[in-house]
Amino acid sequence: MAVLLSTLATEIVIPVAAVIGIVFSLVQWFIVSRVKVTPERHAPPAGPNSKKNGFNDYLIEEEEGLNDQNVVAKCAEIQTAISEGATSFLFTEYQYVGVFMVVFAILIFLFLGSVEGFSTKSQPCTYDAQRTCKPALATAIFSTVAFVLGGVTSILSGFLGMKIATYANARTTLEARKGVGKAFIVAFRSGAVMGFLLAANGLLVLFITINVFKVYYGDDWEGLFESITGYGLGGSAMALFGRVGGGIYTKAADVGADLVGKVERNIPEDDPRNPAVIADNVGDNVGDIAGMGSDLFGSYAESSCAALVVASISSFGINHEFTSMLYPLLISSMGIIICLITTLFATDFFEIKAVKEIEPALKKQLIISTVLMTVGIAIISWIALPSSFTIYNFGVQKVVKNWQLFLCVAVGLWAGLIIGFVTEYYTSNAYSPVQDVADSCRTGAATNVIFGLALGYKSVIIPIFAIAVSIFVSFSFAAMYGIAVAALGMLSTIATGLAIDAYGPISDNAGGIAEMAGMSHRIRERTDALDAAGNTTAAIGKGFAIGSAALVSLALFGAFVSRAAISTVDVLTPKVFIGLIVGAMLPYWFSAMTMKSVGSAALKMVEEVRRQFNTIPGLMEGTAKPDYATCVKISTDASIKEMIPPGALVILTPLIVGTLFGVETLSGVLAGSLVSGVQVAISASNTGGAWDNAKKYIEAGASEHARTLGPKGSDPHKAAVIGDTIGDPLKDTSGPSLNILIKLMAVESLVFAPFFATHGGLLFKIF
Amino acid sequence: MAVLLSTLATEIVIPVAAVIGIVFSLVQWFIVSRVKVTPERHAPPAGPNSKKNGFNDYLIEEEEGLNDQNVVAKCAEIQTAISEGATSFLFTEYQYVGVFMVVFAILIFLFLGSVEGFSTKSQPCTYDAQRTCKPALATAIFSTVAFVLGGVTSILSGFLGMKIATYANARTTLEARKGVGKAFIVAFRSGAVMGFLLAANGLLVLFITINVFKVYYGDDWEGLFESITGYGLGGSAMALFGRVGGGIYTKAADVGADLVGKVERNIPEDDPRNPAVIADNVGDNVGDIAGMGSDLFGSYAESSCAALVVASISSFGINHEFTSMLYPLLISSMGIIICLITTLFATDFFEIKAVKEIEPALKKQLIISTVLMTVGIAIISWIALPSSFTIYNFGVQKVVKNWQLFLCVAVGLWAGLIIGFVTEYYTSNAYSPVQDVADSCRTGAATNVIFGLALGYKSVIIPIFAIAVSIFVSFSFAAMYGIAVAALGMLSTIATGLAIDAYGPISDNAGGIAEMAGMSHRIRERTDALDAAGNTTAAIGKGFAIGSAALVSLALFGAFVSRAAISTVDVLTPKVFIGLIVGAMLPYWFSAMTMKSVGSAALKMVEEVRRQFNTIPGLMEGTAKPDYATCVKISTDASIKEMIPPGALVILTPLIVGTLFGVETLSGVLAGSLVSGVQVAISASNTGGAWDNAKKYIEAGASEHARTLGPKGSDPHKAAVIGDTIGDPLKDTSGPSLNILIKLMAVESLVFAPFFATHGGLLFKIF
Repeated sequence: MAVLLSTLATEIVIPVAAVIGIVFSLVQWFIVSRVKVTPERHAPPAGPNSKKNGFNDYLIEEEEGLNDQNVVAKCAEIQTAISEGATSFLFTEYQYVGVFMVVFAILIFLFLGSVEGFSTKSQPCTYDAQRTCKPALATAIFSTVAFVLGGVTSILSGFLGMKIATYANARTTLEARKGVGKAFIVAFRSGAVMGFLLAANGLLVLFITINVFKVYYGDDWEGLFESITGYGLGGSAMALFGRVGGGIYTKAADVGADLVGKVERNIPEDDPRNPAVIADNVGDNVGDIAGMGSDLFGSYAESSCAALVVASISSFGINHEFTSMLYPLLISSMGIIICLITTLFATDFFEIKAVKEIEPALKKQLIISTVLMTVGIAIISWIALPSSFTIYNFGVQKVVKNWQLFLCVAVGLWAGLIIGFVTEYYTSNAYSPVQDVADSCRTGAATNVIFGLALGYKSVIIPIFAIAVSIFVSFSFAAMYGIAVAALGMLSTIATGLAIDAYGPISDNAGGIAEMAGMSHRIRERTDALDAAGNTTAAIGKGFAIGSAALVSLALFGAFVSRAAISTVDVLTPKVFIGLIVGAMLPYWFSAMTMKSVGSAALKMVEEVRRQFNTIPGLMEGTAKPDYATCVKISTDASIKEMIPPGALVILTPLIVGTLFGVETLSGVLAGSLVSGVQVAISASNTGGAWDNAKKYIEAGASEHARTLGPKGSDPHKAAVIGDTIGDPLKDTSGPSLNILIKLMAVESLVFAPFFATHGGLLFKIF
Repeated sequence: MAVLLSTLATEIVIPVAAVIGIVFSLVQWFIVSRVKVTPERHAPPAGPNSKKNGFNDYLIEEEEGLNDQNVVAKCAEIQTAISEGATSFLFTEYQYVGVFMVVFAILIFLFLGSVEGFSTKSQPCTYDAQRTCKPALATAIFSTVAFVLGGVTSILSGFLGMKIATYANARTTLEARKGVGKAFIVAFRSGAVMGFLLAANGLLVLFITINVFKVYYGDDWEGLFESITGYGLGGSAMALFGRVGGGIYTKAADVGADLVGKVERNIPEDDPRNPAVIADNVGDNVGDIAGMGSDLFGSYAESSCAALVVASISSFGINHEFTSMLYPLLISSMGIIICLITTLFATDFFEIKAVKEIEPALKKQLIISTVLMTVGIAIISWIALPSSFTIYNFGVQKVVKNWQLFLCVAVGLWAGLIIGFVTEYYTSNAYSPVQDVADSCRTGAATNVIFGLALGYKSVIIPIFAIAVSIFVSFSFAAMYGIAVAALGMLSTIATGLAIDAYGPISDNAGGIAEMAGMSHRIRERTDALDAAGNTTAAIGKGFAIGSAALVSLALFGAFVSRAAISTVDVLTPKVFIGLIVGAMLPYWFSAMTMKSVGSAALKMVEEVRRQFNTIPGLMEGTAKPDYATCVKISTDASIKEMIPPGALVILTPLIVGTLFGVETLSGVLAGSLVSGVQVAISASNTGGAWDNAKKYIEAGASEHARTLGPKGSDPHKAAVIGDTIGDPLKDTSGPSLNILIKLMAVESLVFAPFFATHGGLLFKIF
């Protein structure tokens, strides 16, 4: 049963892979930093650095505005404003979140410590009464520490992502003067900086934490990995506030800016005369970048924790096989290396020369990473797993072969790719669904909305089947452990996924900066082309996030059920069924809150923007500057205030249900919110993405059909803008927050499971 | 254990109650028919019949246009056009549905007959091997007969409802000349005709069927009531096509008429110059009246069947207590009597004298019927049930007291009232939620849609808790039988519910006829006031329909599980979980189909209406008549064609899943579609209702706030019209069809359970 990879090798391979990831991201950052945003002294009429470029002959004809040092200064100024706005918002957010973290850390300690009445005596292990395990008090302390570490890493991930993005946006704009290919590389490299930093950082912190905790826990792996789940909880809890707060911020600003600027005043998007324009651009960085970074880090941390805790109580943990135990981390290590190679295909092996090559290049990233990763998983499964091993599933033993576990990971990985492609089909304006939605704008906003909603509903079908097949295959082979590693498989190429995802908002910002800096129309066209591809990849990223969230939650749910010592979750008992129906309602409650928040904040923003246009003389003429700061403040205040109720809903539900109604009802709630939330999240994201691209389809006017609907300002275009605005909170606030809802409730239940199992169900105990 | 009500008394009481209901509805019909729509010969300047009215002094000042015999002739003409259009559509629909019924009847026979290989030998009973039961072939034959009977009764219910409504609409218009109170009474009486006819008819046919089948089955009640479930399946299958077909018809016409008429041409709703106006008015009758009639008949039939089949295999059936066995029918009988008394409160005990009294009068109907019915249920529970009895629940025995069963029915009844009131709160423009939505129109259609969607999501919360509490209470007291009778409790006041519900479209049509007949503005104002109240009651009716559907489906689901001999439905098995997540997806798939259908049909309608406005000279000036027939044909063709795919989805899913994946996966699908579908249905109905009333709020301009948003044609009003149009398919097509989806899949699974249990799960058997 010995595995090829020794324990020592495992202890070396994982940190090395993480360090390689970090070094690679620093190299990318260094390359990006060579684009200067400080005006060059004694600058000759043409920038000298462009001369050194090998592809000079292809691109020289496209170059323009290189010698205008005023533009560079302007870009630098705008970049600073955006960066400062984003930093200031995140610090305000972190203050509130910090308070929450402290309170919640204390709660974790008290709840888990109380399981055995804060006793310091060792206890017989839950799954093996022959051995003694560390006391519940230790689990309480170490879970709390892991929670804080997870939270801090999550915050760090989001913050670094934001810093990188605001560092890269103006550089992308400036490179766009040299051509679309150059700009693409800068934006993509910057995305890669974020992707690799997050993936490597998450892996490294987790690896170190496990090793440090192991010093205390020794042979008690059950306790060790129980405590480690706190890491996932911390990551996801921060992600919740990041996604919701950032999501409200960005969409309040975006909707507010669009409603007055584009609809009422007929000025272009990102026009510097619009008072909400800086807030809008800040929003992209705090919502789409920092929020998403925290979110995907959370998913990654949770799927690793889910796999680890399931393994610790069902197989490798009991047999103390360290290398096999760390199989999830080895998969992630391999993922970093594979993604590194994949990135080179976009940045070094091929060169983007035309607009139409952008989207295929990004899509190729997904395909290449998936194909290579399949091989990578096979290698890891071969060297890190015994050829056959036993897992324990709700009291039943099951023999699993290593190739079966390989299939579990691979099915998750490929299901992710399928979800990605389906998402692309439904949200890219290259295909008929979005074109149909655009066509329905002919009869006005109402039909546009009806068709858009129908598209979102329809786009749920195939992803759900893909998830169902993954669940069936992985569960059949390796029960809940199979599902956990399937989730990990879907997230194994996270570095590439994040790079592609971050690329979108960076390009979006670059366009905004070009507009605000008053650069020529051609520069804006180039950044728009980057951005259009970014819209689709953003939707794909959300598809991944939701698909993996579904698998992760199910795995966490399974681990929770094991730990809470429930043998079946029977739908036909009233306790479970009421949980199921109420759980299925929670995504609606949550969405109602977040959408209303965006709506209210946007209304305030609209009033402020209108007020400025009406009271500041010369604003429309461009002779007076708007008051950007007030708009930034409105978004900040609204998002901080409004993120609390939905956050409380998610955080408190498992605690209240578990304490008052007990673990059966909580199981129902988890299952219900999972199966219902996935549908709402996918449909919301895709509907929003489709509306956005239907609008872009009309604006770009690239086909005969599109031109009959345009141009900008035509009635169909106005209808499309309305759809786009409605889609904003759906795709960037409520939709993507829902995957955190389902994951967070599951991981929280898992962490608190020992408490609920001993003290839960008060209401039924009283009556 | 003897009950107070003898078997003979039961055999007398039920048909007598049904006949009383039918006689009462005929009396109401006779009263309505006294309003003449044929021009009176030798008419003196003032109508002589008005003089006889005791309330003459109050109303005389309001009377106007009574002597204009041209108007009467015009009304009669329009009424005939609407009635003919509706009849012709329903006949076309029934042709297709008839083919389906024949095919499906054959399928039922073949599937159920094959369970024991079409053997004609008696078999040992499933739940009592000591006795012999009739062969599966008998169940196949009788189920098929019951299915056909249910289908025919459903069709009859819808058709009669439509006939009554089209008989009443012009009469309501004509009475509106005498005052709002008079018009209200006519519309309400007509609704009552439909309500009582349906309730009594459904009860009578079911009662007769049971007694006829009993002649063959004798003591084999298990087989008897198994066959009877076919009645529920027939009712619901027809309801599906009625709701979906009618829903697409009405909304294609409505959306098409509004988009060109109101938005582009700025002509009022129901303007006779609009070519789609007749189609729109026909739609109200085939969708809102016939569709809803079939739907609620289906719910009623299914909840009765669910209660009967559960009782037959868990308690009274085994002990052969006939009176207790027919407890569900006795509850319905009592319901008819209670609703009869309740109706008198609206028609005879009090008089409506002002517009503001309409909505309270309708609300009072709900409260009075609920309070009286609570007493009625107590009486039936006391005389028809033994003081304590035993039920068998998945192998466990449970003793139930009669007062506990009373509480089960009562909790369903009162949960219905709570759902009704919550629905009213979220959809009536008397309260802040709709006013907030109206207010958001200030910033355009986008914020209106965002707020409306958020409102719909939020409106799900309390109804779901109400349903959850009902389920918990009734399940705890009497397991699945408790849930079945809770559903019955919610539907026990169906006659009143239907009367209130049908009142809405009749008033709507009356307004349309007033507009088309060129009657004075004041008449239209009166019918509009009736209609506004009707919007809210329609939403309440949908709330009831969905709430009861949830309970009915759960009861049917429980019966299915019993019959398929599954002991637990464990979420943590892959077979069940994939069913659960795919089931939760089905409402989205179904909604995508129905919404897209409405959208496409509306686009065709828009093109036709535009074509007519552009090509028929003098149409806008009112000198030429539009071609109504083409629009009617477009709606008819579209709805017939488009109802097939969603219908197939619902009908085929249980068959495919049951046959290929087996009963566990099917259980998952049923549970998933139930918990997810309820949310989608409630939120869709309420969002649509809220948008409709937000628009009406702005139009009516009854408050200071409303006037700042108006008048008609202002920008906020235009935004409100867009919301209203989007809401149309949500509230009248996809939303209300979803409760049929969840009910129908459950009842179909129940009917086919013996087949699935013996031959199902082919795919897993092969691999």
